[in-house]
Amino acid sequence: MNRIVVALGGNALLRHGQDPGSPAEIDNLAIAADNLAALSVGRSLIVTHGNGPQVGLLALRAEAAGGPPSTLDVLGAETDGAIGYLLEREVRSRLPGVPLVTLLTQVEVAADDPAFTHPTKPIGPFYPAEQADALRESRGWRFWEDSRGFRRLVPSPIPLRVFQLDAVRLLLEADHVVICGGGGGIPVARGEHGSFRGVDAVVDKDLLAALVAEGVGADMLLLLTDVDAVYRDFPECQDRVERATPQELRSLGLPAGSMGPKVEAAARFAERTGGVAGIGCLDDALLVLAGKAGTRVRSS
Amino acid sequence: MNRIVVALGGNALLRHGQDPGSPAEIDNLAIAADNLAALSVGRSLIVTHGNGPQVGLLALRAEAAGGPPSTLDVLGAETDGAIGYLLEREVRSRLPGVPLVTLLTQVEVAADDPAFTHPTKPIGPFYPAEQADALRESRGWRFWEDSRGFRRLVPSPIPLRVFQLDAVRLLLEADHVVICGGGGGIPVARGEHGSFRGVDAVVDKDLLAALVAEGVGADMLLLLTDVDAVYRDFPECQDRVERATPQELRSLGLPAGSMGPKVEAAARFAERTGGVAGIGCLDDALLVLAGKAGTRVRSS
Repeated sequence: MNRIVVALGGNALLRHGQDPGSPAEIDNLAIAADNLAALSVGRSLIVTHGNGPQVGLLALRAEAAGGPPSTLDVLGAETDGAIGYLLEREVRSRLPGVPLVTLLTQVEVAADDPAFTHPTKPIGPFYPAEQADALRESRGWRFWEDSRGFRRLVPSPIPLRVFQLDAVRLLLEADHVVICGGGGGIPVARGEHGSFRGVDAVVDKDLLAALVAEGVGADMLLLLTDVDAVYRDFPECQDRVERATPQELRSLGLPAGSMGPKVEAAARFAERTGGVAGIGCLDDALLVLAGKAGTRVRSS
Repeated sequence: MNRIVVALGGNALLRHGQDPGSPAEIDNLAIAADNLAALSVGRSLIVTHGNGPQVGLLALRAEAAGGPPSTLDVLGAETDGAIGYLLEREVRSRLPGVPLVTLLTQVEVAADDPAFTHPTKPIGPFYPAEQADALRESRGWRFWEDSRGFRRLVPSPIPLRVFQLDAVRLLLEADHVVICGGGGGIPVARGEHGSFRGVDAVVDKDLLAALVAEGVGADMLLLLTDVDAVYRDFPECQDRVERATPQELRSLGLPAGSMGPKVEAAARFAERTGGVAGIGCLDDALLVLAGKAGTRVRSS
């Protein structure tokens, strides 16, 4: 049975202006669940998901309540709980009798990853320029700008090791659909005497999905988002890449805050495993799987 | 190998005035992790935990940020993420090489459970009398009063079915320590056409632990909290119950917002399985296990 890892974009699950846990989010999750239910037929399915908008909004909630600032490992774990629950519930409603399970996933990162001094991952809402300036001044935040405004950037260290891979494999072998790796996994780094400590960062969920896909011996990695393919001419998006090798894809030099990590995740998976990676729109999931939509990445 | 289910009280993990994710919470979790690591030696271990203080505080955060009110299923799932993550991380730091896994656990409740019109589960912070009066007026909240003040009461329907029991069994058989059933499980009820919907409630984590313990064929259920035993003379607490049958324990008529659910959970487990249940202080975990502290419940 084909084993596929699907990574769902956080932006496809919670759109600009929507609240975590709101009916709008549940509508988006229902669309995701429709696609996952279709993908699961006759396949062994692992689902990961992003949490960029959600983790930023929970950070703002914690702040609004006046408590001490929460770190992104804890906030990320909170989003994993909420998104994982809603996704599993919506998939269960569509696949009665199919065993489903959601694992909280911890991921080891290097304490000295250069990402900690060079943040690249956009989270939370979009701010207008003046508010971004004020936050840059008062908090030292860094920002990413696109046509919709300014978004806070946080460190996104490289995922080195997923602790729960054995559990994922066991559950897949027992025919479970497994949801894991939410928000890129909860990042921890080695402390003293073999202990682990939490890290104030958000791991890229596509790189995490590639690591999980490699670890469970997946045949295919599907990176599904709100953009329908990789384009040679981002952000104009007229010239779609239908097929590419990892080398061709990397040579496009796409930005770190956008398609960059998807391209790198797809390239790594294709290079290291000989499998196929697909990048495309959540609504086109089955077409991307079949190579009839999106961008298909393969080593040769 | 003995199989034991341990239920950790939410109040033992986050004490009055502490913030979720704060160093104070992590200190409490470290104490819990020390005890869990000791309990795990030579035993098959399942850990569940409460979330009463945490879920109430996340509800206040969501409110402070001015968004729409979140329901307790989603907020509970968020607390499961954060507590499950921190607990697993702290246990891993003490048990290098032991496979650990945390499952998000969904639990089915009846849509017409009488609990929905008769809330009994205290959550969140303690309020002074005037503030409780104001909230009763403005929100229709109900309250539980003890010596520390007033706490909001929410519905706590009876857990009927845990969806992830097969996964828990598989992982135990592969020698994993399994953390599951956080916050009493995330409550869902049957909707139309086999679908499930979230429910605005908090299931009692001790009743959930009893259901899990029965489902996985546990030999023992340990209910650990910040109180060192069941007392005949609550709240004076001079006359400790050392040993009791389910019938003796129930005849004490302990209050629903306090020891009541623990007594009922211990009694059910002992009656239905013939196993032993222990109720006691988190710091005395090994002593409660050995019957040298706390209250021990057995059918005969």
